[in-house]
Parts: sequence; structure tokens; C-alpha cells
Amino acid sequence: MKVRGRAVRPRDAGGDRPHVVIIGGGFGGLEAAKALAGRPVRVTLIDRSNHHLFQPLLYQVAMAGLSPTEVAIPIRSVLRNKDNVHTVLGNVAAVDLEGRRVDLDDGESFDFDYLVIAAGARPAYFGQEHWRAHAPPLKSVEDATEIRREVLLAFERAERMANDLQRRKKLTLAIVGGGPTGVELAGALVELSQSILSGDFRRVQTQEVRVVLIEGGDRLLSGMSEASSREAKLALEAMGVEIILNRMARDIDERGVHLDDRIVEAETIVWAAGVRASALAESIDVPKDQAGRIIVRHDCSLPNHPNAFAIGDIARFDTEDGPLPGVSPVAMQQGRYVARWILRTVEGRSTKPFRYRDKGTMATIGRRRAVADVLGVTMTGYPAWLAWLFVHLFFLVGFKNRVFVLLQWIGAYVFESRGARLITFNDRKQRSETPPRRFNAGPRSVETAS
Amino acid sequence: MKVRGRAVRPRDAGGDRPHVVIIGGGFGGLEAAKALAGRPVRVTLIDRSNHHLFQPLLYQVAMAGLSPTEVAIPIRSVLRNKDNVHTVLGNVAAVDLEGRRVDLDDGESFDFDYLVIAAGARPAYFGQEHWRAHAPPLKSVEDATEIRREVLLAFERAERMANDLQRRKKLTLAIVGGGPTGVELAGALVELSQSILSGDFRRVQTQEVRVVLIEGGDRLLSGMSEASSREAKLALEAMGVEIILNRMARDIDERGVHLDDRIVEAETIVWAAGVRASALAESIDVPKDQAGRIIVRHDCSLPNHPNAFAIGDIARFDTEDGPLPGVSPVAMQQGRYVARWILRTVEGRSTKPFRYRDKGTMATIGRRRAVADVLGVTMTGYPAWLAWLFVHLFFLVGFKNRVFVLLQWIGAYVFESRGARLITFNDRKQRSETPPRRFNAGPRSVETAS
Repeated sequence: MKVRGRAVRPRDAGGDRPHVVIIGGGFGGLEAAKALAGRPVRVTLIDRSNHHLFQPLLYQVAMAGLSPTEVAIPIRSVLRNKDNVHTVLGNVAAVDLEGRRVDLDDGESFDFDYLVIAAGARPAYFGQEHWRAHAPPLKSVEDATEIRREVLLAFERAERMANDLQRRKKLTLAIVGGGPTGVELAGALVELSQSILSGDFRRVQTQEVRVVLIEGGDRLLSGMSEASSREAKLALEAMGVEIILNRMARDIDERGVHLDDRIVEAETIVWAAGVRASALAESIDVPKDQAGRIIVRHDCSLPNHPNAFAIGDIARFDTEDGPLPGVSPVAMQQGRYVARWILRTVEGRSTKPFRYRDKGTMATIGRRRAVADVLGVTMTGYPAWLAWLFVHLFFLVGFKNRVFVLLQWIGAYVFESRGARLITFNDRKQRSETPPRRFNAGPRSVETAS
Repeated sequence: MKVRGRAVRPRDAGGDRPHVVIIGGGFGGLEAAKALAGRPVRVTLIDRSNHHLFQPLLYQVAMAGLSPTEVAIPIRSVLRNKDNVHTVLGNVAAVDLEGRRVDLDDGESFDFDYLVIAAGARPAYFGQEHWRAHAPPLKSVEDATEIRREVLLAFERAERMANDLQRRKKLTLAIVGGGPTGVELAGALVELSQSILSGDFRRVQTQEVRVVLIEGGDRLLSGMSEASSREAKLALEAMGVEIILNRMARDIDERGVHLDDRIVEAETIVWAAGVRASALAESIDVPKDQAGRIIVRHDCSLPNHPNAFAIGDIARFDTEDGPLPGVSPVAMQQGRYVARWILRTVEGRSTKPFRYRDKGTMATIGRRRAVADVLGVTMTGYPAWLAWLFVHLFFLVGFKNRVFVLLQWIGAYVFESRGARLITFNDRKQRSETPPRRFNAGPRSVETAS
């Protein structure tokens, strides 16, 4: 280490500063690392990916409104010049709480004095993992570009079809899950099709596009107020979205989404229904809830391991009003809390239990409407959308990203176009030899251009 | 067709306007389509990809300076509202010059009155296609993000290595081919490593990065003046690039690039050495040169087929000074020429042979230097770079893209950061389960964080 400070709780032979290992560079982990930067600890932040992802705007990448580089930022550059923070691109294979060691799957190990587990959540298919092939989730940059490709290819395929009925089927898009992701996707999907289908395509007409939003519960946005749920439903229906409530997906296959009483035939399906704690939680021998989340104490620590913490979506934190929701403000506040806890303990001081300060929740419905519950009040329409825009830009990490996202939004209004509409393929052979398989698999409509 | 005009050369039973089929949405094909838009012809533009790619800036995507959406634009949106132009995403399987028909590989066919073949070039490995696995080319958006991933992963791998010698080997990057792409890549690579390695990494030092540029001929930029070649070599060497001239690659494998007298051991290799005409040319029974290019007449038409044209990189156009180079101004001028030829012929008038107006060539060397040959004068340094920036922004398709690329460049100066540094993976299983194979394959340096 370049800078040596008072090693209050020396563990290493060299009398070094205490070592904090953080697993995960999402909202929680990154906040913890930032709060520990420049303080008398050493920090190692381990993430599987090299970038921090601003998940609340990921649906915009899937809908070609933003480019991946506008919602993701390299973790290294966020922690640039923080000399006591070391970033590692790696995959954690095991956590040894007793031995205070984290093992990566490539053999490297890190001893720790304090551990912050912030590995987040992953999509869950209720044990039906084969649904994933038909209904990709929206959790990573790669997921978003995959959905973007599927949606744009559906339009391209439809454009090649002279038969109206076939075309309508190609143009049906189903979203499973009526939470914020599902609602925001549905709104953006309608606007994407309205903005690009009007001028760019010849056969496909805007009104042929059918967006179906399927929710198992009795209202959309169940984490928000009933007024917001109602408003979201009305606004989406006014945009032409079909909303199906109280219906669980029983099966998902190439035909579409099978419900109890019908089948929603859809070419493109997006999964926005369920998440589970990251698989890392399974390998750690502590009590968990049925979503796989680590049940933490009131200071975010693990039972019997006061020096190990779980925060954000991988943790279950119970309050009088039930468990805290899996949203970014919870993870960020927990990250800052845990950092403060560690720093105070290093100084020999104690810390009060964690308290979540709920500043409100919001969801956007298309480009000029949103719903927001702030301090018990429900905002709707354009004012709520402006509040949504402000909050999201404010929390977007990286000044340059903020400027660019704002410019993209302004550009979307002025030019009414979507710049990020690239169809890119993964497999080099695939794209250099033939168009992708699914693109070829459509009906072979032989026609001449007469 | 919505708008019916005078069918001067009716071919279809319906007395429709003449039908022009354009294969390829690159510089040549797109210019032709734009010049035919709104004129008394029907146009079908067929491309394998949904976007027009501004290839001269593709190296910036590979070097994380620009995002893919800033150098690529959907063809549909360029031709938006051009009612007589129909865009088709598809792969041409065969061209029947006699029968005047183009067949796609999914069974669809298009009859044509006029055909413009503008399918471009593809990377060529001198018959050693297995080199591609070790030395990816830089022709598509996917190529660029693959190179970006490889380079960034090389840095990440090196950061995990305590052994200085191992680390240096990981940090050697070789570029095969000293044309504009190779020269621009080499300069950008040095700047990428200087800008991000200084603050973001802990172990890896800027001076450890080694960039080797290998050219088979006796000078860089052989298409430009000798003064420009000299200046480019001096400028790159001043930046620390090793330049090897007069050496052909004899083999490329996991060790590196094998030359006659040595092996350049490199972790990352980029292929910028050779191109061949698109594979489509092979299937067309007309005379070709040894680069597979269709030899065209002085009006860009195919011998014995006055209604079929080949333009841009897929065509060989001979002049008194030798064949025209494979650069975008040639393709664009040919595209406009062919469009004019078709429109005049429809009107019953004749057209003079094609003449290329060479307005100059340029290549950038890093962020503030360039070389340019304009009207027989060689410009160098900062003035040449400003000229380069102006010309490239001017020809970048799409107003919004231009603004954003300019802003990115300004941002790169102000913030000295690269926003587009995402490592994204292709295979979903791969990234959700483990880090990519090549990342794991490195030496397993077991170390503790003590």
C-alpha cells in the first residue's frame, strides 16, 4: 500500500489497514466502495462484469432509445484515482465466513476483515428455466441488446409478409410481469413502434402492433399506491396496450404465453416477472427466505458474523412494515450504512440499526407520463414524468452519461427518431454466412417485386 | 405503389416504373438510393444488416472512444419517407443477370430492370482463414466490439498478474497491416492505454503496453504520398509504437504473429491487412481480378450487361493511373453516377463515362495529429487533424450522429475518459455462469490480498 495509516484492527502481519472485500459493483456495492474510498481501510471490489449498470434505464436500451454505453459505466472509471480501492474482474466461487476468505473460480483468493455481499438478483422462472429461450429477461446489457434485436427483427420479418394475418401475429409482443420493468417496457414498446413504423416501413402499420402486458396479481405496480396502479393501467390502455390481470403464465413456448383460460400468441416475449437472489447466496450457509435472499440482522450483518454484511437485492431486511423492496434506493442506503458501520467500528465506536428512508417510487409510462408516490402523495402525468427524468438523471453515475442521456432524450423529441436501432449478432459465423436462424425460420413467402 | 408516374420503360404488366435493385447499403449503395429517391423509378435496397456503417470511424468503436450507435445508423431511417425506396433486410443468394432477377436465401426473389451491385469487401486472410480466430478483422460493428472486449480483457488479465514478465506479454498488442485502419488503430491504442491505465489500474503501468504495427510493404499508408508515409511513421514512433516494415505474416497462432525472422508474441492481434470482394461476386459469372472484384466498364456497368452495375469495393475500375482505390469517396461518386445514368437512360438520354474526382486522402494518428494529401499537398499535425475531423463529421450520415460524435470528442478532451469501455459477452450461458473461457485460461496466479 502506498499510504499507511493507523492499523486499528491489524489482521495482516504487515500491520496493514483492515481489508474490506465487496462482492458486486451494483448500486449497493458501488456506494459502499465510494464511501470507503480515501478512508483508513483497504477495499477490494469484485464484479463479474467490468461495468456498473444503471438498471432503471435498461428498458430504454431494449427499446433502442439509449445506447448501452449510456446506461453502463466501467466500475474502474467510477473508482478512478481512489488509491485504496482495488477493482477485480472475476467470478466469486465460494465465501468462507469462518476463514474470512473469498475464492474466485480461477483460483485467486482474497482474505478479508470485513465482507460486503452485494451480488444482487437474477431472473427467476419459477423453476421453468426452459421458458428463458422464448422469453428473455431484462437484467444485463446483453439481455437488452438481445431484446432490441428480437423486436427489430420482428418488425423486419413482418415487413416481408404480404399476408395481413401472418403479419399481425409477428407483430404481437407480450410482456410477462406488471412491475415497473413491465410497465415501462410496454409504454416504450408502443412508442418505439409508433415512432419508427410510421415512416420507415412500407407494409407494417402502427395499428397492427399489439402489445400485451400480463400480470399475475390484481394490479400493475403492486409496490406502489393503488392510485398509481390505476393511473398506470388507464394510461397504458389509452396507448393501446392490452392488460391482462390475475393470470399467471402456465407455460411459455414458441406459440406464446399459455394462461389458464387462453394462449397469448406472440412472436416476441419479454420476461419481467420474477427475480431470485444471486446464485452466490446458495453457497453461503446462513438462513435464507424463499426467494433465496440472505436474512440479515438490523445492522445488515449476517447472523453470527458481525463482520459480514449482505445488502441490496441479495438481502432480506425485515421491518415492521414487512421486508424492504428490491429497489436501488434501499441498496444504496444500505451500502452507505455498512461503510459507515465499518469505519466507526475501526474507530472503536458503535452504530445504530439501519433505517430505510423511503423517498418515493416512480415508474414512467411512455415519453411524457409517469406515476410517482412521493411522501404519501401520488403524482401523475407530465409533472410526474419530469420528476422521473430529474431523479433518474441525477442518480445516473457519471457526469458525461448524464449529459448524453439528456441529449438523447431531447433528440428523441426534436427528431422523433431512435438512434440506437442496431441489429447486431453474436456469432460471427452466423452473421457472415447467413442471416440468423430465427430470421430464416419464418414462412418462406415467395413473391416477386411486381 | 402509392404514387404512379409515367412508366417510361414498363417491364411489369401493371405498367409500373422501372425497378432498380441495389445490393448493399454501404457508401455506394446508399448514395445511389438517395439519388434515386423521389425520382420516377422504384428502388429496392437489400442489405444483410439493418444499418449503414461509417467504416472510417469504426476503429474508434474498437478503441472504446465511440459507441456503436454513433457510427452506425439504421438504413431505414436514412431512407425514411422516401416512398419509392423499399428497404429489405436479407441475404442475396444468387443474381440472374439474364433473367434479371435477384434471389434471397430465404426464397424471396426480386425482378429488376436495373441492378446496382454494391456489396463491398470482406476481410481476406490470404487463404489462411484459421488466422481469423487469433486475429479478428475490423469490418463490422460486431468485429469492433469483439476487439474492444479483447483489448479491455487483456488489460484486466494483466492487472491480476503480479509477475512483471507475464504482464508485459499480456500487454503486447499487434496490428497486421499498415494501411489507414492499421495506422489509426495503432495511434488510438496508445492513447486508450495512456488515458485509462494511468488512473484506473493499480499494477498495470502505461509504459508496459507495447503496440507493434506490422506492414508487408516498405512504407505505411502506401495509398498516400511518401511524405505522409514518413510523417505517419515518425509520429507513431514518437508515441511509442514499434513499426516493422517489409515483413509478411507467415503464420498467426496463440503465440503471436510469425514473421520470417522473428515471432511477435502478442496477446491481442488485429487483422487490418487484406480485403477481398464480397463473396457475392464469386457467384456472378463475369470477369474478375485476383482480389475477386468485378471488372467494370467505364460507365461502371458489367460487360455485356449495360443495365447491371458494380460500384465501390466489389468493383475494379481501371483508369490510366491504375485501378481506383477501395475508399469511400470512390464508392459514393460511383453511386451517384450510376443513379444519374439510370435516370438519364429512363429519359432516353446518354451519359459520359465515370470520372473519379480525387479530393484527397487522410489518416489520423491519435487525437491531435493526422496526415492528409489534398490536391498534391501534404498536410500534417494538428491542422491535418482538424481537417480530418471536419471531413469525417461532414460525411457521417445522420445529423444526430454528427452532433454526438463531436460531443464525444469534446468530452474525450475535457474529461480524458473513454465512456464506451464496456466488456460485453455474446453467449448468455457463458456470462451468467462463469467469466469467458479465455479469461479463465490465463495463468492461475494464486495470491492473497495481504
